[in-house]
Amino acid sequence: MRNIRLTIAYQGAAYSGWQIQPSTPTVQGAIEERLRQMTGAHCRLRAAGRTDAGVHARGQVANFRTESSISLRAFHRGLNALLPHDIAILAVEEVPEEFDSRRHNQGKHYRYLIWNERTPSPRHVSNTWHLHRPLALEPMAAAARLLVGSHDFSAFRSASCDAETTLRTLFRCTVGAEPPLVQIDVEGTAFLKNMVRIIAGTLVEVGREQRDPGSLTELLRCGQRPLAGVTAPPQGLTLMRVFLDGAAAVEGAGVRE
Amino acid sequence: MRNIRLTIAYQGAAYSGWQIQPSTPTVQGAIEERLRQMTGAHCRLRAAGRTDAGVHARGQVANFRTESSISLRAFHRGLNALLPHDIAILAVEEVPEEFDSRRHNQGKHYRYLIWNERTPSPRHVSNTWHLHRPLALEPMAAAARLLVGSHDFSAFRSASCDAETTLRTLFRCTVGAEPPLVQIDVEGTAFLKNMVRIIAGTLVEVGREQRDPGSLTELLRCGQRPLAGVTAPPQGLTLMRVFLDGAAAVEGAGVRE
Repeated sequence: MRNIRLTIAYQGAAYSGWQIQPSTPTVQGAIEERLRQMTGAHCRLRAAGRTDAGVHARGQVANFRTESSISLRAFHRGLNALLPHDIAILAVEEVPEEFDSRRHNQGKHYRYLIWNERTPSPRHVSNTWHLHRPLALEPMAAAARLLVGSHDFSAFRSASCDAETTLRTLFRCTVGAEPPLVQIDVEGTAFLKNMVRIIAGTLVEVGREQRDPGSLTELLRCGQRPLAGVTAPPQGLTLMRVFLDGAAAVEGAGVRE
Repeated sequence: MRNIRLTIAYQGAAYSGWQIQPSTPTVQGAIEERLRQMTGAHCRLRAAGRTDAGVHARGQVANFRTESSISLRAFHRGLNALLPHDIAILAVEEVPEEFDSRRHNQGKHYRYLIWNERTPSPRHVSNTWHLHRPLALEPMAAAARLLVGSHDFSAFRSASCDAETTLRTLFRCTVGAEPPLVQIDVEGTAFLKNMVRIIAGTLVEVGREQRDPGSLTELLRCGQRPLAGVTAPPQGLTLMRVFLDGAAAVEGAGVRE
Protein backbone atom coordinates (compact mmCIF):
# COMPACT_ATOMS: atom_id res chain seq x y z
CA MET A 1 0.00 0.00 0.00
CA ARG A 2 1.47 3.37 -0.99
CA ASN A 3 0.99 6.49 1.11
CA ILE A 4 0.93 9.67 -0.98
CA ARG A 5 1.05 13.22 0.29
CA LEU A 6 -0.36 16.19 -1.62
CA THR A 7 0.40 19.88 -1.11
CA ILE A 8 -2.65 21.83 -2.23
CA ALA A 9 -3.65 25.44 -2.97
CA TYR A 10 -7.23 26.58 -3.37
CA GLN A 11 -9.55 29.54 -3.47
CA GLY A 12 -12.30 28.75 -1.01
CA ALA A 13 -15.22 30.82 -2.36
CA ALA A 14 -16.93 28.00 -4.24
CA TYR A 15 -16.59 25.38 -1.47
CA SER A 16 -18.30 24.58 1.82
CA GLY A 17 -14.84 24.16 3.31
CA TRP A 18 -12.32 21.35 3.14
CA GLN A 19 -14.26 18.51 4.74
CA ILE A 20 -16.40 16.28 2.57
CA GLN A 21 -20.18 16.62 2.98
CA PRO A 22 -23.09 15.12 1.10
CA SER A 23 -24.57 17.21 -1.74
CA THR A 24 -22.44 20.33 -1.29
CA PRO A 25 -19.12 21.06 -3.01
CA THR A 26 -16.06 20.69 -0.78
CA VAL A 27 -12.34 20.71 -1.57
CA GLN A 28 -11.86 17.21 -0.18
CA GLY A 29 -14.81 15.97 -2.24
CA ALA A 30 -13.46 17.56 -5.43
CA ILE A 31 -10.02 15.96 -5.05
CA GLU A 32 -11.33 12.55 -3.95
CA GLU A 33 -13.60 12.49 -7.01
CA ARG A 34 -10.57 12.98 -9.32
CA LEU A 35 -8.52 10.40 -7.40
CA ARG A 36 -11.34 7.93 -7.99
CA GLN A 37 -11.35 8.80 -11.69
CA MET A 38 -7.61 8.21 -11.89
CA THR A 39 -7.26 5.11 -9.69
CA GLY A 40 -10.68 3.51 -10.10
CA ALA A 41 -10.92 3.17 -6.32
CA HIS A 42 -12.07 5.34 -3.46
CA CYS A 43 -9.17 7.20 -1.82
CA ARG A 44 -9.83 8.86 1.52
CA LEU A 45 -7.85 12.09 2.07
CA ARG A 46 -6.61 13.07 5.53
CA ALA A 47 -5.76 16.78 5.79
CA ALA A 48 -3.63 18.74 8.23
CA GLY A 49 -6.26 21.47 8.61
CA ARG A 50 -10.00 21.34 7.97
CA THR A 51 -10.51 24.84 6.61
CA ASP A 52 -13.97 26.41 6.93
CA ALA A 53 -16.31 27.37 4.11
CA GLY A 54 -14.81 30.20 2.05
CA VAL A 55 -11.32 29.93 3.55
CA HIS A 56 -8.36 29.62 1.13
CA ALA A 57 -5.12 27.63 1.23
CA ARG A 58 -1.71 28.09 -0.31
CA GLY A 59 -0.12 25.07 1.36
CA GLN A 60 -2.72 22.60 2.66
CA VAL A 61 -1.29 19.12 3.18
CA ALA A 62 -3.28 15.89 2.82
CA ASN A 63 -2.40 12.24 2.31
CA PHE A 64 -4.15 9.14 0.98
CA ARG A 65 -3.38 5.44 0.68
CA THR A 66 -3.61 3.63 -2.63
CA GLU A 67 -2.66 0.38 -4.36
CA SER A 68 -2.45 2.16 -7.69
CA SER A 69 0.88 2.12 -9.51
CA ILE A 70 0.31 5.53 -11.12
CA SER A 71 3.55 7.55 -11.00
CA LEU A 72 3.83 10.64 -8.81
CA ARG A 73 4.31 12.78 -11.88
CA ALA A 74 1.17 11.34 -13.48
CA PHE A 75 -0.82 12.00 -10.29
CA HIS A 76 0.47 15.58 -10.31
CA ARG A 77 -0.35 16.33 -13.93
CA GLY A 78 -3.54 14.25 -14.01
CA LEU A 79 -5.07 15.87 -10.93
CA ASN A 80 -4.24 19.38 -12.14
CA ALA A 81 -5.73 18.57 -15.54
CA LEU A 82 -8.94 17.18 -14.02
CA LEU A 83 -9.47 19.63 -11.13
CA PRO A 84 -11.27 22.94 -11.53
CA HIS A 85 -9.04 26.03 -11.74
CA ASP A 86 -9.68 27.07 -8.14
CA ILE A 87 -7.84 23.99 -6.80
CA ALA A 88 -4.20 23.19 -7.67
CA ILE A 89 -1.88 20.40 -6.62
CA LEU A 90 1.52 21.95 -5.84
CA ALA A 91 3.40 18.77 -4.95
CA VAL A 92 2.94 14.99 -4.84
CA GLU A 93 5.28 12.94 -2.66
CA GLU A 94 5.53 9.34 -1.54
CA VAL A 95 5.79 9.15 2.26
CA PRO A 96 6.34 6.38 4.81
CA GLU A 97 3.32 4.19 5.49
CA GLU A 98 2.81 5.59 8.99
CA PHE A 99 2.70 9.25 7.92
CA ASP A 100 -0.58 10.99 8.76
CA SER A 101 -1.16 14.65 7.81
CA ARG A 102 -3.31 15.35 10.83
CA ARG A 103 -0.98 13.87 13.43
CA HIS A 104 2.44 14.42 11.88
CA ASN A 105 2.61 18.16 11.71
CA GLN A 106 4.12 20.56 14.17
CA GLY A 107 1.77 23.36 13.40
CA LYS A 108 0.29 25.67 10.84
CA HIS A 109 0.66 29.20 9.56
CA TYR A 110 -2.51 31.14 8.86
CA ARG A 111 -2.68 34.64 7.38
CA TYR A 112 -5.63 37.00 7.67
CA LEU A 113 -5.75 39.88 5.14
CA ILE A 114 -7.62 43.18 5.50
CA TRP A 115 -8.13 45.74 2.72
CA ASN A 116 -7.97 48.90 4.81
CA GLU A 117 -9.03 51.79 2.61
CA ARG A 118 -12.34 53.45 1.89
CA THR A 119 -12.29 52.55 -1.80
CA PRO A 120 -12.90 48.85 -2.41
CA SER A 121 -10.54 46.84 -4.61
CA PRO A 122 -12.17 44.47 -7.11
CA ARG A 123 -8.89 42.58 -7.41
CA HIS A 124 -8.66 41.95 -3.67
CA VAL A 125 -12.30 41.45 -2.78
CA SER A 126 -12.12 37.65 -2.88
CA ASN A 127 -9.14 37.45 -0.49
CA THR A 128 -9.61 40.27 2.00
CA TRP A 129 -11.97 41.73 4.59
CA HIS A 130 -12.77 45.28 3.50
CA LEU A 131 -12.63 47.79 6.37
CA HIS A 132 -13.06 51.46 5.46
CA ARG A 133 -11.56 53.26 8.43
CA PRO A 134 -7.81 53.27 9.08
CA LEU A 135 -6.89 50.76 11.78
CA ALA A 136 -4.45 51.72 14.55
CA LEU A 137 -1.74 49.17 13.87
CA GLU A 138 0.52 49.66 16.89
CA PRO A 139 -2.15 48.77 19.46
CA MET A 140 -3.12 45.78 17.29
CA ALA A 141 0.49 44.56 17.24
CA ALA A 142 0.78 45.02 21.01
CA ALA A 143 -2.42 43.06 21.58
CA ALA A 144 -1.27 40.32 19.18
CA ARG A 145 1.94 39.82 21.17
CA LEU A 146 -0.11 38.99 24.27
CA LEU A 147 -1.54 35.91 22.53
CA VAL A 148 1.85 34.31 21.86
CA GLY A 149 2.58 31.37 24.14
CA SER A 150 0.46 28.59 25.69
CA HIS A 151 -2.96 29.74 26.82
CA ASP A 152 -6.51 28.56 27.31
CA PHE A 153 -8.11 29.92 24.12
CA SER A 154 -11.72 29.25 25.22
CA ALA A 155 -12.70 32.86 24.43
CA PHE A 156 -11.42 32.37 20.88
CA ARG A 157 -13.44 29.39 19.73
CA SER A 158 -16.79 29.04 18.04
CA ALA A 159 -19.75 27.99 20.18
CA SER A 160 -19.96 24.88 17.99
CA CYS A 161 -16.33 23.85 18.65
CA ASP A 162 -16.23 20.40 20.21
CA ALA A 163 -12.49 20.13 20.98
CA GLU A 164 -11.95 18.43 24.34
CA THR A 165 -9.09 20.66 25.41
CA THR A 166 -8.75 24.38 24.86
CA LEU A 167 -5.08 24.83 25.71
CA ARG A 168 -3.24 25.89 22.56
CA THR A 169 0.21 27.28 21.81
CA LEU A 170 0.90 30.14 19.42
CA PHE A 171 4.51 30.78 18.48
CA ARG A 172 3.74 33.80 16.32
CA CYS A 173 1.01 36.41 16.19
CA THR A 174 2.03 39.54 14.29
CA VAL A 175 0.36 42.47 12.57
CA GLY A 176 2.03 43.85 9.47
CA ALA A 177 1.05 46.32 6.78
CA GLU A 178 1.70 46.99 3.15
CA PRO A 179 -0.85 49.80 2.88
CA PRO A 180 -3.68 49.51 2.18
CA LEU A 181 -3.29 45.83 3.09
CA VAL A 182 -3.04 44.80 6.74
CA GLN A 183 -1.96 41.24 7.45
CA ILE A 184 -2.27 39.21 10.61
CA ASP A 185 0.04 36.17 10.73
CA VAL A 186 -0.69 33.46 13.24
CA GLU A 187 1.43 30.36 13.71
CA GLY A 188 0.67 27.69 16.28
CA THR A 189 0.74 23.99 16.98
CA ALA A 190 -3.01 23.52 16.68
CA PHE A 191 -6.14 25.63 16.46
CA LEU A 192 -9.69 25.63 17.81
CA LYS A 193 -12.67 26.14 15.52
CA ASN A 194 -12.72 29.70 14.11
CA MET A 195 -9.78 30.62 16.37
CA VAL A 196 -7.82 32.68 13.84
CA ARG A 197 -10.95 34.47 12.61
CA ILE A 198 -11.98 35.36 16.19
CA ILE A 199 -8.42 36.56 16.89
CA ALA A 200 -8.64 38.72 13.73
CA GLY A 201 -12.06 40.08 14.71
CA THR A 202 -10.80 40.91 18.21
CA LEU A 203 -7.61 42.58 16.96
CA VAL A 204 -9.73 44.69 14.61
CA GLU A 205 -11.67 46.00 17.61
CA VAL A 206 -8.32 47.01 19.10
CA GLY A 207 -7.39 48.66 15.78
CA ARG A 208 -10.66 50.61 15.88
CA GLU A 209 -9.79 51.71 19.41
CA GLN A 210 -12.97 50.11 20.71
CA ARG A 211 -10.94 47.78 22.89
CA ASP A 212 -7.81 48.15 24.96
CA PRO A 213 -4.84 45.97 23.88
CA GLY A 214 -4.40 44.79 27.48
CA SER A 215 -7.95 43.40 27.50
CA LEU A 216 -6.67 40.37 25.59
CA THR A 217 -4.88 39.11 28.69
CA GLU A 218 -8.20 39.40 30.48
CA LEU A 219 -9.97 37.50 27.69
CA LEU A 220 -7.49 34.63 27.92
CA ARG A 221 -8.06 34.52 31.66
CA CYS A 222 -11.88 34.61 31.67
CA GLY A 223 -12.41 32.41 28.59
CA GLN A 224 -15.77 34.02 27.69
CA ARG A 225 -16.41 33.89 23.93
CA PRO A 226 -19.06 36.69 24.05
CA LEU A 227 -16.41 39.08 25.39
CA ALA A 228 -14.12 38.55 22.37
CA GLY A 229 -14.62 40.22 18.99
CA VAL A 230 -16.67 39.08 16.01
CA THR A 231 -15.62 36.16 13.85
CA ALA A 232 -13.91 37.86 10.91
CA PRO A 233 -15.36 36.80 7.52
CA PRO A 234 -13.83 33.69 5.91
CA GLN A 235 -12.56 35.16 2.62
CA GLY A 236 -9.75 37.05 4.43
CA LEU A 237 -8.21 33.83 5.77
CA THR A 238 -5.59 31.62 4.09
CA LEU A 239 -3.87 28.49 5.39
CA MET A 240 -0.36 29.41 4.26
CA ARG A 241 1.73 26.45 5.34
CA VAL A 242 1.74 23.26 7.34
CA PHE A 243 4.90 22.64 9.36
CA LEU A 244 5.68 18.97 8.88
CA ASP A 245 7.66 16.93 11.38
CA GLY A 246 11.34 16.98 10.49
CA ALA A 247 11.40 13.29 9.58
CA ALA A 248 8.22 13.38 7.51
CA ALA A 249 9.40 16.42 5.60
CA VAL A 250 12.74 14.86 4.78
CA GLU A 251 11.55 11.37 3.92
CA GLY A 252 9.07 12.49 1.30
CA ALA A 253 10.33 11.87 -2.23
CA GLY A 254 8.39 13.18 -5.15
CA VAL A 255 7.61 15.94 -7.56
CA ARG A 256 7.41 19.57 -6.64
CA GLU A 257 7.40 21.48 -9.88
CA MET B 1 -24.89 70.91 -16.83
CA ARG B 2 -22.11 69.28 -14.79
CA ASN B 3 -19.49 67.03 -16.36
CA ILE B 4 -18.25 64.34 -13.98
CA ARG B 5 -15.30 62.05 -14.49
CA LEU B 6 -14.99 58.64 -12.85
CA THR B 7 -11.85 56.55 -12.40
CA ILE B 8 -12.91 52.91 -12.28
CA ALA B 9 -11.43 49.50 -11.41
CA TYR B 10 -13.10 46.21 -12.30
CA GLN B 11 -12.62 42.49 -12.64
CA GLY B 12 -13.91 41.63 -16.10
CA ALA B 13 -14.90 37.97 -15.69
CA ALA B 14 -18.62 38.58 -15.15
CA TYR B 15 -19.02 41.16 -17.93
CA SER B 16 -19.32 41.13 -21.70
CA GLY B 17 -16.84 43.98 -21.77
CA TRP B 18 -17.17 47.70 -21.07
CA GLN B 19 -19.64 48.72 -23.74
CA ILE B 20 -23.35 48.56 -23.02
CA GLN B 21 -25.33 45.86 -24.84
CA PRO B 22 -28.91 44.70 -24.54
CA SER B 23 -29.59 41.73 -22.22
CA THR B 24 -26.00 40.96 -21.26
CA PRO B 25 -24.11 42.36 -18.26
CA THR B 26 -21.54 45.05 -19.11
CA VAL B 27 -19.49 47.36 -16.92
CA GLN B 28 -20.96 50.46 -18.57
CA GLY B 29 -24.48 49.06 -18.08
CA ALA B 30 -23.84 48.29 -14.41
CA ILE B 31 -22.59 51.81 -13.64
CA GLU B 32 -25.25 53.60 -15.72
CA GLU B 33 -27.93 51.62 -13.87
CA ARG B 34 -26.61 52.93 -10.50
CA LEU B 35 -26.29 56.47 -11.86
CA ARG B 36 -29.94 56.30 -12.86
CA GLN B 37 -30.85 55.05 -9.37
CA MET B 38 -28.97 57.95 -7.79
CA THR B 39 -29.92 60.80 -10.13
CA GLY B 40 -33.32 59.60 -11.40
CA ALA B 41 -32.17 60.31 -14.95
CA HIS B 42 -30.32 58.43 -17.64
CA CYS B 43 -26.60 59.29 -17.69
CA ARG B 44 -24.55 58.18 -20.68
CA LEU B 45 -20.97 57.23 -19.84
CA ARG B 46 -18.13 57.89 -22.31
CA ALA B 47 -15.03 55.81 -21.59
CA ALA B 48 -11.39 56.19 -22.61
CA GLY B 49 -11.10 52.52 -23.55
CA ARG B 50 -13.78 50.03 -24.49
CA THR B 51 -12.32 46.91 -22.90
CA ASP B 52 -13.34 43.51 -24.31
CA ALA B 53 -15.29 40.79 -22.54
CA GLY B 54 -13.30 39.41 -19.61
CA VAL B 55 -10.67 42.18 -19.61
CA HIS B 56 -9.98 43.98 -16.32
CA ALA B 57 -9.23 47.60 -15.43
CA ARG B 58 -7.38 49.29 -12.61
CA GLY B 59 -7.73 52.83 -13.98
CA GLN B 60 -10.48 53.09 -16.58
CA VAL B 61 -11.70 56.68 -17.06
CA ALA B 62 -15.25 57.63 -18.06
CA ASN B 63 -17.31 60.79 -17.84
CA PHE B 64 -21.01 61.66 -17.86
CA ARG B 65 -23.12 64.81 -17.91
CA THR B 66 -25.80 65.45 -15.31
CA GLU B 67 -28.05 68.16 -13.91
CA SER B 68 -28.07 66.47 -10.53
CA SER B 69 -26.74 68.43 -7.55
CA ILE B 70 -25.46 65.30 -5.77
CA SER B 71 -22.03 66.01 -4.24
CA LEU B 72 -18.92 64.30 -5.60
CA ARG B 73 -18.41 62.57 -2.28
CA ALA B 74 -21.99 61.27 -2.33
CA PHE B 75 -21.52 59.98 -5.89
CA HIS B 76 -18.35 58.23 -4.77
CA ARG B 77 -19.80 56.55 -1.71
CA GLY B 78 -23.21 55.92 -3.24
CA LEU B 79 -21.87 54.23 -6.37
CA ASN B 80 -19.51 52.02 -4.37
CA ALA B 81 -22.34 51.06 -2.03
CA LEU B 82 -24.68 50.20 -4.92
CA LEU B 83 -22.24 48.53 -7.32
CA PRO B 84 -21.32 44.84 -7.14
CA HIS B 85 -17.95 44.05 -5.54
CA ASP B 86 -16.21 43.47 -8.88
CA ILE B 87 -16.56 47.14 -9.87
CA ALA B 88 -15.14 50.00 -7.76
CA ILE B 89 -15.13 53.75 -8.26
CA LEU B 90 -11.64 55.02 -7.34
CA ALA B 91 -12.22 58.73 -7.92
CA VAL B 92 -14.99 61.20 -8.82
CA GLU B 93 -14.00 64.61 -10.20
CA GLU B 94 -15.81 67.55 -11.70
CA VAL B 95 -14.26 68.48 -15.05
CA PRO B 96 -14.74 71.30 -17.59
CA GLU B 97 -17.82 70.97 -19.77
CA GLU B 98 -15.79 70.19 -22.90
CA PHE B 99 -13.85 67.28 -21.38
CA ASP B 100 -14.42 63.97 -23.15
CA SER B 101 -12.73 60.77 -21.92
CA ARG B 102 -12.41 59.31 -25.39
CA ARG B 103 -10.91 62.36 -27.05
CA HIS B 104 -9.00 63.99 -24.20
CA ASN B 105 -6.46 61.35 -23.37
CA GLN B 106 -2.93 61.00 -24.58
CA GLY B 107 -2.85 57.27 -24.37
CA LYS B 108 -3.29 54.19 -22.27
CA HIS B 109 -1.21 51.67 -20.40
CA TYR B 110 -2.20 48.01 -20.71
CA ARG B 111 -0.55 45.13 -18.87
CA TYR B 112 -0.72 41.49 -19.91
CA LEU B 113 0.10 38.90 -17.21
CA ILE B 114 1.26 35.31 -17.74
CA TRP B 115 1.55 32.66 -15.00
CA ASN B 116 4.59 30.80 -16.31
CA GLU B 117 4.97 27.65 -14.29
CA ARG B 118 3.69 24.10 -14.69
CA THR B 119 1.65 24.20 -11.48
CA PRO B 120 -1.43 26.39 -11.79
CA SER B 121 -2.18 29.06 -9.17
CA PRO B 122 -5.78 29.30 -7.97
CA ARG B 123 -5.09 32.82 -6.69
CA HIS B 124 -3.88 34.04 -10.08
CA VAL B 125 -6.14 32.12 -12.43
CA SER B 126 -8.61 34.98 -12.88
CA ASN B 127 -5.90 37.49 -13.88
CA THR B 128 -3.33 35.53 -15.85
CA TRP B 129 -2.80 33.33 -18.88
CA HIS B 130 -1.38 30.03 -17.64
CA LEU B 131 1.52 28.76 -19.77
CA HIS B 132 3.33 25.65 -18.52
CA ARG B 133 6.66 25.83 -20.32
CA PRO B 134 9.29 28.42 -19.40
CA LEU B 135 9.28 31.30 -21.87
CA ALA B 136 12.57 32.66 -23.24
CA LEU B 137 12.30 36.23 -21.96
CA GLU B 138 15.25 37.85 -23.71
CA PRO B 139 14.01 37.14 -27.25
CA MET B 140 10.54 38.32 -26.15
CA ALA B 141 11.98 41.60 -24.88
CA ALA B 142 13.99 42.06 -28.08
CA ALA B 143 10.88 41.45 -30.20
CA ALA B 144 8.82 43.82 -28.03
CA ARG B 145 11.31 46.65 -28.62
CA LEU B 146 10.71 46.37 -32.37
CA LEU B 147 7.06 47.40 -31.86
CA VAL B 148 7.87 50.72 -30.18
CA GLY B 149 7.27 53.71 -32.43
CA SER B 150 4.71 54.58 -35.12
CA HIS B 151 3.77 51.65 -37.32
CA ASP B 152 0.94 50.22 -39.38
CA PHE B 153 -0.42 47.65 -36.90
CA SER B 154 -2.71 45.92 -39.44
CA ALA B 155 -1.25 42.51 -38.54
CA PHE B 156 -2.18 43.13 -34.89
CA ARG B 157 -5.90 43.77 -35.16
CA SER B 158 -8.91 41.52 -35.02
CA ALA B 159 -10.62 40.65 -38.31
CA SER B 160 -13.71 42.42 -36.92
CA CYS B 161 -11.83 45.69 -36.24
CA ASP B 162 -13.44 48.52 -38.18
CA ALA B 163 -10.98 51.35 -37.43
CA GLU B 164 -10.42 53.49 -40.52
CA THR B 165 -6.70 53.93 -40.00
CA THR B 166 -4.23 51.38 -38.74
CA LEU B 167 -1.28 53.63 -37.97
CA ARG B 168 -0.68 53.57 -34.22
CA THR B 169 2.13 54.74 -31.94
CA LEU B 170 3.51 52.72 -29.03
CA PHE B 171 5.82 54.53 -26.65
CA ARG B 172 6.51 51.45 -24.52
CA CYS B 173 6.47 47.72 -25.04
CA THR B 174 8.44 45.82 -22.41
CA VAL B 175 8.65 42.30 -21.05
CA GLY B 176 9.39 41.89 -17.35
CA ALA B 177 9.32 39.02 -14.92
CA GLU B 178 8.73 38.37 -11.26
CA PRO B 179 8.88 34.59 -11.59
CA PRO B 180 6.64 32.78 -12.13
CA LEU B 181 4.80 35.89 -13.39
CA VAL B 182 5.73 37.39 -16.76
CA GLN B 183 4.32 40.81 -17.56
CA ILE B 184 4.04 42.59 -20.87
CA ASP B 185 3.52 46.35 -20.55
CA VAL B 186 2.26 48.26 -23.55
CA GLU B 187 1.72 52.01 -23.64
CA GLY B 188 0.47 53.85 -26.69
CA THR B 189 -1.66 56.70 -27.89
CA ALA B 190 -4.45 54.50 -29.20
CA PHE B 191 -5.11 50.84 -29.91
CA LEU B 192 -6.79 48.70 -32.55
CA LYS B 193 -9.26 45.98 -31.59
CA ASN B 194 -7.48 43.12 -29.73
CA MET B 195 -4.12 44.78 -30.46
CA VAL B 196 -2.53 44.16 -27.06
CA ARG B 197 -3.79 40.57 -26.91
CA ILE B 198 -2.41 39.83 -30.39
CA ILE B 199 0.91 41.44 -29.40
CA ALA B 200 0.95 39.21 -26.29
CA GLY B 201 0.09 36.10 -28.33
CA THR B 202 2.84 36.90 -30.84
CA LEU B 203 5.46 37.61 -28.16
CA VAL B 204 4.57 34.27 -26.54
CA GLU B 205 5.42 32.51 -29.82
CA VAL B 206 8.80 34.25 -29.66
CA GLY B 207 9.17 33.13 -26.01
CA ARG B 208 8.44 29.54 -27.10
CA GLU B 209 11.13 29.92 -29.75
CA GLN B 210 8.58 29.15 -32.47
CA ARG B 211 9.18 32.55 -34.00
CA ASP B 212 12.23 34.71 -34.56
CA PRO B 213 12.22 38.11 -32.75
CA GLY B 214 13.15 39.83 -36.04
CA SER B 215 9.99 38.49 -37.69
CA LEU B 216 8.01 41.25 -35.94
CA THR B 217 9.55 43.86 -38.24
CA GLU B 218 8.37 41.72 -41.14
CA LEU B 219 4.87 41.47 -39.62
CA LEU B 220 4.62 45.26 -39.31
CA ARG B 221 5.68 45.56 -42.93
CA CYS B 222 3.33 42.94 -44.45
CA GLY B 223 0.30 43.69 -42.24
CA GLN B 224 -1.10 40.15 -42.52
CA ARG B 225 -3.10 39.19 -39.40
CA PRO B 226 -2.85 35.43 -40.08
CA LEU B 227 0.94 35.65 -39.87
CA ALA B 228 0.83 37.08 -36.31
CA GLY B 229 0.27 34.97 -33.17
CA VAL B 230 -2.97 33.95 -31.50
CA THR B 231 -5.13 36.44 -29.61
CA ALA B 232 -4.09 35.87 -26.00
CA PRO B 233 -7.05 35.12 -23.68
CA PRO B 234 -8.79 38.14 -22.13
CA GLN B 235 -8.34 37.39 -18.41
CA GLY B 236 -4.60 38.19 -18.62
CA LEU B 237 -5.22 41.77 -19.75
CA THR B 238 -5.72 44.84 -17.56
CA LEU B 239 -6.20 48.49 -18.54
CA MET B 240 -3.82 49.96 -15.97
CA ARG B 241 -4.05 53.68 -16.60
CA VAL B 242 -5.37 56.34 -18.93
CA PHE B 243 -2.98 59.23 -19.59
CA LEU B 244 -5.12 62.35 -19.46
CA ASP B 245 -4.23 65.56 -21.25
CA GLY B 246 -2.23 67.83 -18.98
CA ALA B 247 -4.99 70.43 -18.75
CA ALA B 248 -7.77 67.93 -18.14
CA ALA B 249 -5.79 66.19 -15.44
CA VAL B 250 -5.07 69.42 -13.60
CA GLU B 251 -8.46 71.05 -13.89
CA GLY B 252 -10.35 68.13 -12.33
CA ALA B 253 -11.40 68.86 -8.76
CA GLY B 254 -12.91 66.14 -6.68
CA VAL B 255 -12.52 63.22 -4.35
CA ARG B 256 -9.87 60.59 -4.65
CA GLU B 257 -9.91 58.64 -1.43
